[in-house]
Amino acid sequence: MEKLTVIKIGGNVIDNSESLTAFLDDFASVKGPKILVHGGGKIASKLANDLGIKATLVEGRRITDKETLRIVTMVYAGYVNKTIVALLQARNCNALGLSGADGNAILAQKRPVTTIDYGFVGDLKPKAVNMPLLTNLLKNGFTPIFSAITHDGKGQLLNTNADTIASSVAISLSKIYQSSLVYCFEKKGVLKDKDDDQSLIPEIKTDNLTSLQEKGIISDGMIPKLHNAFEAIHQGVHEVFIGNSQELGLLHKGKFGTRLCK
Amino acid sequence: MEKLTVIKIGGNVIDNSESLTAFLDDFASVKGPKILVHGGGKIASKLANDLGIKATLVEGRRITDKETLRIVTMVYAGYVNKTIVALLQARNCNALGLSGADGNAILAQKRPVTTIDYGFVGDLKPKAVNMPLLTNLLKNGFTPIFSAITHDGKGQLLNTNADTIASSVAISLSKIYQSSLVYCFEKKGVLKDKDDDQSLIPEIKTDNLTSLQEKGIISDGMIPKLHNAFEAIHQGVHEVFIGNSQELGLLHKGKFGTRLCK
Repeated sequence: MEKLTVIKIGGNVIDNSESLTAFLDDFASVKGPKILVHGGGKIASKLANDLGIKATLVEGRRITDKETLRIVTMVYAGYVNKTIVALLQARNCNALGLSGADGNAILAQKRPVTTIDYGFVGDLKPKAVNMPLLTNLLKNGFTPIFSAITHDGKGQLLNTNADTIASSVAISLSKIYQSSLVYCFEKKGVLKDKDDDQSLIPEIKTDNLTSLQEKGIISDGMIPKLHNAFEAIHQGVHEVFIGNSQELGLLHKGKFGTRLCK
Repeated sequence: MEKLTVIKIGGNVIDNSESLTAFLDDFASVKGPKILVHGGGKIASKLANDLGIKATLVEGRRITDKETLRIVTMVYAGYVNKTIVALLQARNCNALGLSGADGNAILAQKRPVTTIDYGFVGDLKPKAVNMPLLTNLLKNGFTPIFSAITHDGKGQLLNTNADTIASSVAISLSKIYQSSLVYCFEKKGVLKDKDDDQSLIPEIKTDNLTSLQEKGIISDGMIPKLHNAFEAIHQGVHEVFIGNSQELGLLHKGKFGTRLCK
């Protein structure tokens, strides 16, 4: 099977134009079909703040009300997405920006109201990802760039977790590609000592996870990330990398961050 | 040749959610391959105003400075584009939003500085429109929805006139489609008396234009619009319609606004 790389970047890369440029240089150099998924960083919070729109919190959880949805749609699907697409086009990468609404790329449902009404937040259904659209784009040499905005198919846009989009896309496409999922963040990877970059764990296999957890080697904050990564592997993704966005250039050498596999 | 309809809407439709919904109902019903091009309306000016960003005017001309570009990218390519795409998806129209940067759909060049520096404004070069991309999308059943943002291929986004995008797209695709170009605005069409909707001129042919102009039947504001329309026809577009966005439903009966043709 042909290889496919699905890469997710978070706010820390997007907020700094130098980091973003360096990352995009490396992203453009990644060989073969690839997909980028991005969040929005602090730009959305700053815009909301500048407009005097206060974050609505219910039981400590952030709520996507109508105004917040408008802001994240502007920032994620507009400013951040098109800025990235234009910068990649200048790097000979035929980027094409998508929200989940475009071509019905990703279908979500508004999160059901239980004790908390999260507002316009989308959860992905199984088979949420439009495989024919993505395979058509990839086969024609395009690089889809996803913002973390989806839709419900009934006209409503929905704010959606970018990590979930990345893993759902990688899982869906693993039926026809050998897909690698790459989570970029501010650390070198999974560290034995979170303050020591030298303590990087280069590889974790499913069987080691429990033992590393029991020994207390993996810190609390990393556990849900790792569980999601192994869940993606369980559902067909070939391997997951977790590492620093500024070191993506090491990916083709297999030396990027921590590699998770079966 | 197969028919293609390229429709342009302006701010007056977008600013009012009822007008927009009614328009999109009609747009979704237009048969055959079609493309929508939209401007941004007053939302961008309102956002700039709310953020305390003043419009920069040089010799009475509006300048797209860096902040203004950021705002129009957010509003046009983000909020307005994705709102329209989601509403069309709910109407069984497989809409896919594009800026000119996406898939290198439309290549522009920054307007050269002469006596005025317009800032980040894009002018379209000949062959600016990426025909293989658009024909691939159309053949696969997608309806491209263009915001009026393009790029220069070197990483710079550019604010671009939506009328020009619509006519360039219709002209380019006239090589493989019998293309109709539809300009929607707030009037019923070209009127003999601009205050009397009953005075609609249903059809103008190239040969009649000069005579209508000489007789003073066509009002000044309409003249550049008509010249651009006939220029598009001269360059291969089959026919151009100018009419009210709320009457698009009449298009399939050939009774929409004023029809311009050879």
